[in-house]
Amino acid sequence: MDKNLQRRTVLAAMAGGTVAAATGAGPAMAAPAAAPERLKGYTLPLSARGVANLAGKPPWNYVGDAVGAEFWTRPDAAAASLPTGLDPDPANPGHGYAVFIDWQFAATSDDYLDPTFSQYSEFLLLMDASYQGTAVAWCPFIWVDNDASLARGWVQGFPKKIGQIRQTRAFAVDSLAGPIVGKSGRFGATMSAGGRRLAETTVTLDHTADRLPALTRPIVNLRHFPQLALSGQDTPPVHELTMSVLDNLKMANTWVGSGDLHFFPAPREELADLGPTRVGVGFRGSLSYTVNDLKIL
Amino acid sequence: MDKNLQRRTVLAAMAGGTVAAATGAGPAMAAPAAAPERLKGYTLPLSARGVANLAGKPPWNYVGDAVGAEFWTRPDAAAASLPTGLDPDPANPGHGYAVFIDWQFAATSDDYLDPTFSQYSEFLLLMDASYQGTAVAWCPFIWVDNDASLARGWVQGFPKKIGQIRQTRAFAVDSLAGPIVGKSGRFGATMSAGGRRLAETTVTLDHTADRLPALTRPIVNLRHFPQLALSGQDTPPVHELTMSVLDNLKMANTWVGSGDLHFFPAPREELADLGPTRVGVGFRGSLSYTVNDLKIL
Amino acid sequence: MDKNLQRRTVLAAMAGGTVAAATGAGPAMAAPAAAPERLKGYTLPLSARGVANLAGKPPWNYVGDAVGAEFWTRPDAAAASLPTGLDPDPANPGHGYAVFIDWQFAATSDDYLDPTFSQYSEFLLLMDASYQGTAVAWCPFIWVDNDASLARGWVQGFPKKIGQIRQTRAFAVDSLAGPIVGKSGRFGATMSAGGRRLAETTVTLDHTADRLPALTRPIVNLRHFPQLALSGQDTPPVHELTMSVLDNLKMANTWVGSGDLHFFPAPREELADLGPTRVGVGFRGSLSYTVNDLKIL
Amino acid sequence: MDKNLQRRTVLAAMAGGTVAAATGAGPAMAAPAAAPERLKGYTLPLSARGVANLAGKPPWNYVGDAVGAEFWTRPDAAAASLPTGLDPDPANPGHGYAVFIDWQFAATSDDYLDPTFSQYSEFLLLMDASYQGTAVAWCPFIWVDNDASLARGWVQGFPKKIGQIRQTRAFAVDSLAGPIVGKSGRFGATMSAGGRRLAETTVTLDHTADRLPALTRPIVNLRHFPQLALSGQDTPPVHELTMSVLDNLKMANTWVGSGDLHFFPAPREELADLGPTRVGVGFRGSLSYTVNDLKIL
Repeated sequence: MDKNLQRRTVLAAMAGGTVAAATGAGPAMAAPAAAPERLKGYTLPLSARGVANLAGKPPWNYVGDAVGAEFWTRPDAAAASLPTGLDPDPANPGHGYAVFIDWQFAATSDDYLDPTFSQYSEFLLLMDASYQGTAVAWCPFIWVDNDASLARGWVQGFPKKIGQIRQTRAFAVDSLAGPIVGKSGRFGATMSAGGRRLAETTVTLDHTADRLPALTRPIVNLRHFPQLALSGQDTPPVHELTMSVLDNLKMANTWVGSGDLHFFPAPREELADLGPTRVGVGFRGSLSYTVNDLKIL
Repeated sequence: MDKNLQRRTVLAAMAGGTVAAATGAGPAMAAPAAAPERLKGYTLPLSARGVANLAGKPPWNYVGDAVGAEFWTRPDAAAASLPTGLDPDPANPGHGYAVFIDWQFAATSDDYLDPTFSQYSEFLLLMDASYQGTAVAWCPFIWVDNDASLARGWVQGFPKKIGQIRQTRAFAVDSLAGPIVGKSGRFGATMSAGGRRLAETTVTLDHTADRLPALTRPIVNLRHFPQLALSGQDTPPVHELTMSVLDNLKMANTWVGSGDLHFFPAPREELADLGPTRVGVGFRGSLSYTVNDLKIL
Repeated sequence: MDKNLQRRTVLAAMAGGTVAAATGAGPAMAAPAAAPERLKGYTLPLSARGVANLAGKPPWNYVGDAVGAEFWTRPDAAAASLPTGLDPDPANPGHGYAVFIDWQFAATSDDYLDPTFSQYSEFLLLMDASYQGTAVAWCPFIWVDNDASLARGWVQGFPKKIGQIRQTRAFAVDSLAGPIVGKSGRFGATMSAGGRRLAETTVTLDHTADRLPALTRPIVNLRHFPQLALSGQDTPPVHELTMSVLDNLKMANTWVGSGDLHFFPAPREELADLGPTRVGVGFRGSLSYTVNDLKIL
Repeated sequence: MDKNLQRRTVLAAMAGGTVAAATGAGPAMAAPAAAPERLKGYTLPLSARGVANLAGKPPWNYVGDAVGAEFWTRPDAAAASLPTGLDPDPANPGHGYAVFIDWQFAATSDDYLDPTFSQYSEFLLLMDASYQGTAVAWCPFIWVDNDASLARGWVQGFPKKIGQIRQTRAFAVDSLAGPIVGKSGRFGATMSAGGRRLAETTVTLDHTADRLPALTRPIVNLRHFPQLALSGQDTPPVHELTMSVLDNLKMANTWVGSGDLHFFPAPREELADLGPTRVGVGFRGSLSYTVNDLKIL
């Protein structure tokens, strides 16, 4: 470790910087680069021209269609899913939402012309929690089908894994092949990962609503990036609660009704530990927002 | 071959049927089953309960969003893409359409609740042709991302291969991440197969239209199923021109404007042989129809 | 129907051929093309240069690694899976094999340099059956992850659907990350389709064997290609039992031991109807063969 | 920011910890968690039982087959790909390796029985560089097809993106469908991402070798995890050069010969900026190692 420190010191010196902060922080604490990094970019991979990175700097604009269901799981299971710093919300023990979203993303105005890059589908849980007495939503699990989305998510603290997520779509023409967006319209949504079905819902619309039942509380995530150096494997350099800052949140076409919801057990997954004991409203609607910042709690 | 015929005769006799038609047809000509088949289903796999087949019997209902562009390729290349029985349409040599469609399919009313089964994306060419003096559209190449769709396509004569097809989506809320469905709205679409980009378009909407420029002619396909028995490898039991019967065709939200279009060469593909020398209108719209029949020409 | 026949007659006449055979066969019976087809290829899509087809004419060469297990299902379920013309094999009611194979394919000597095209993974069942008193194997269900393989399979009568199939690999260096090919070596294999796990096995090797327990009987398939014309939807133009002709079958590195095997129910599947009531030997080995012909029974 | 700090202080106090280090570090510098985290795991997602994380703590065991080629790119392009702290290696300007590897991973002894989890394929560049006068290899770009592998890679500093990577396989039986592992044996390998082919090689074996030409130098990576809080977007909390520690590295079956190598340009990629101006040896072989530690430089 001393040797590593020494190397870092020399490296930083060579690069014309200083290592004071790094030296003080110790090897288990990451430090800002001591010298200006000549590679460009925001996330990995940094590169000569700065266009190869999975995600460039914000602002990040999102628009999508959401289908989901409100549910209650066992309160002790919900409590066990919370990180240190969050408490169960006593108002509604075990309460949360399962949401499937077909997203389109754009940082620059041309991004949405490249759908392989800009489109992705997502499934996430948002569980009621309390942060210092404030009602918040905690996302214990989330899956997406796109690596750029995964990278942005990790930076926000969303613990994204890769899965396959699909939802019924509505179209602008009548057809027996699609539901109406209206009373009695039905929408299904499914999520699989590792070749196993992990979650599914079916929602029946009943009436319009001002906004989606989910996304009514600020989302608290846990930004976390571990250390691999042997002595630091228990002291992650990044481990911090964050609160999402969603600018310019808009919703439209929101319908609420009934729904069912099922989670299925699988190795290497704990989603089914939060399986519904009761299902509340089902919903569907469109939403958009912009991410430009994050509160570190 | 005699031995095979004898076996088929015995097989049919064992099964309590007759083999008159089969005997007369000869080994290279497929015959209707001489005895009732106890397995159920429409396409492969036939099975005990008849639910495992990739596609059950029609009616098949489709609804989708299409993005595409009109184009002209070299007239000799267009002519070379036509099967025996179709001629170039002298009215507009080398003219055709490249269309990307996000489909949702349903045979039964619940199918669209299972998006993994019912949704797929498609890219196809529709080239002007003439069948006995009638203006028709010929589909030389088509890709989809779903095996059930591939099976239905083969039965119709659409020569579907598996590819990855994506198109820009529009949503019900304003966002920098999505285009407007209106003047100046831009939509991109791409198709890849075998890990190679094969086609892409970008369309800019300008004005509404009554209907999509493509899909104005009956589609003629070539149903084709080869024989593997050595003596019959040059005499396919199914090789017939067909004309699609699209019931209840509806279109909505159709916009027309300008577009670009590019095809890229790849091994095992001939799409780029039909590469655009000129691009006409670009378009986007929704459509639905039902398939219940096919004309054998 | 008369009208269709007339059209075909005219079409053939225009093309300079004759329609005698086609006329005699009737509309529900497919006919060899009356005029030489100017498009080239073996399977769809036929094309100007004949390189776009999913599968060119045989010979087709295959080499692969197989992992699988012997099993017994309920005899009535096994019997119900058989097509007309095949009977249960009274010697061993309900007996069959579940086999996972990682294949590499080549028609030409360069094909294996294009692994995206030439490699695929497969899962299939081979159930004991009797054809006119001869012991054969019947393949009720099979999945692959490659469209070219699917096309070749349909031509052979293998009722292939698209799935995701994986098996444990062994490597030429020792590692805790891989099994030995030897006594106590363990191999897992899994198959998923539609985002659902459908089958899995774990095999423990015990001793070498001369050959794989599966693939000891000729495989009988049902070539089947339906008609979509309304009047012919119940009279498929191709519906014939076939017997695979595997030239130059070689096996190596075959080990036999014990295994477990599980099938899981899913909508649109009947695999679990054939679920194991008992599991016999597990096995692993390499094999190769060439397909150049098919017997039509 | 003060408010955020205050929140973190209160949070930590509530949780029974102290925030001294965090307070001192400032909001832009990540800190070890002030209170013990009750969620378990190593990478995201942390969870109640600690089994949902993409990667658990090391040791991580790897075994695989590698195919690749030595190459030279323009020295200025190679130099531009280096992070601050690394210099070009003057001994062989522009020199590096492109390597395709089919991996199998296991942390526990049962992991390799779950091939969907444990198997993945990888493509990476390893470019000659100098770290304080020591000859090292720098990995500017790397793609894998598995999210658990991506997570482990980020922790090591490998800037992994998701791609599709395939290589020709050799099997234990003779076949026209597979190459020999021996003189004149040919192996192809390809990499695609975002539906575009990005890299391909073909290697012809000539003679055996003691070890793979690549992997002869320690690999230096850049661990990097950015901040999303607006004020910290230019000061990543983790940004450190690292040196891989590969325990128990073994190689076998190594062959060296000739090769070709091509990179293809694509939006959002800079791989082709490092395109080969000359290609050296091609190679193929098996390797295994264990990762349990990382040197922070």
